[in-house]
Amino acid sequence: MSNKTLNDHLNWRYATKKMDPAKSVPQDKLDAIIEAVRMAPTSSGTQPFELLVVTNPELRGQIAEAAGGQAQITEGSHLLVFAAWDNYTAERIDEVVGLNITERGDLPLIHGYYDNLKANYVPRDAEVNYAHAARQAYIALGIALVAAAEQEVDSTPMEGFDPAAVDDILGLRDRGLRSVVLMPLGYRDEAADWLLSMPKVRKSRDTIVKQIS
Amino acid sequence: MSNKTLNDHLNWRYATKKMDPAKSVPQDKLDAIIEAVRMAPTSSGTQPFELLVVTNPELRGQIAEAAGGQAQITEGSHLLVFAAWDNYTAERIDEVVGLNITERGDLPLIHGYYDNLKANYVPRDAEVNYAHAARQAYIALGIALVAAAEQEVDSTPMEGFDPAAVDDILGLRDRGLRSVVLMPLGYRDEAADWLLSMPKVRKSRDTIVKQIS
Repeated sequence: MSNKTLNDHLNWRYATKKMDPAKSVPQDKLDAIIEAVRMAPTSSGTQPFELLVVTNPELRGQIAEAAGGQAQITEGSHLLVFAAWDNYTAERIDEVVGLNITERGDLPLIHGYYDNLKANYVPRDAEVNYAHAARQAYIALGIALVAAAEQEVDSTPMEGFDPAAVDDILGLRDRGLRSVVLMPLGYRDEAADWLLSMPKVRKSRDTIVKQIS
Repeated sequence: MSNKTLNDHLNWRYATKKMDPAKSVPQDKLDAIIEAVRMAPTSSGTQPFELLVVTNPELRGQIAEAAGGQAQITEGSHLLVFAAWDNYTAERIDEVVGLNITERGDLPLIHGYYDNLKANYVPRDAEVNYAHAARQAYIALGIALVAAAEQEVDSTPMEGFDPAAVDDILGLRDRGLRSVVLMPLGYRDEAADWLLSMPKVRKSRDTIVKQIS
């Protein structure tokens, strides 16, 4: 608990460039970040991704190699890998239906809604479905970045990696998953992080917001 | 200020199905939500989207028609439209470079970084670039959903609309933008919202999280 606001968290966080390998994120803080990912809203409640929490040093070393050597992957204590479904299938959607029925009862509207969803999603190209699932992972990424900041844990969202290589390293394709985005967790190395002292750069409100009254 | 945590906010919010047209989101709460969108992190700090804040009743009526008649669009007091860049161009990236130089000084690393980005992004297919920009808008969407909940404002993330029709209604294509996702803001109609009393459905931690130690 704290009396900090969301905007305090957004101002505190930054894409940490240098982490202190001597410091590890404690389990309770990790749990709070994971719980925020689990509770993140997704389209039709499908939660079409998995979160991999990688601590294994060898695997993280391999992933860092597949990410241009970005050292936060190994100098942080945990690496979050958001991996989206490679496709929507009837089986995957039926699991969501089953969970809805367990939680809310066997309501006709649940069947009607998801029958319609299956009719729309299942025949679509896998690449279209993957792209849709990946967007849902980005909702969770945004929320995870806030969750880390709330816990005063540093993090670095990373798109700069070879997804096929990371999929291989973690055995994702056999499980119907594709890596979308990485997020190392750890603690900033205050003396060595060149970005820490830089002012945050954001466009003005007038630049990115337009009121249509 | 409150002593609520992020996970309190995530549990409080839900995709509001019925809003009370008599209630309007006050300006200070709207400003806090907009500020969270403005501060949301994006890939290479490009912030490749605009946020349209639509209150005009006629336009919202037209958008609701393009969204299968979803009434929250007109029964809420504000409609947020996240509209991503239709492409990355040298001019758009140069504006980001200019802002970085203003805030951080004319550093060689800024030029090097963004020259490389331009060399990668500008030759790519516009559709690939739009897809990438749209993902960044989803980071901001995730954060906006938290921001609304923090303000105790209800909201409904919506993908179910005809993007080309919404682009036409708001004149987005001429401005190099494409609508990505909608988010009406307002206040739940407690008596009439069938979803309010339903338990929230989320997969178990074991289902969506995998530890790799």
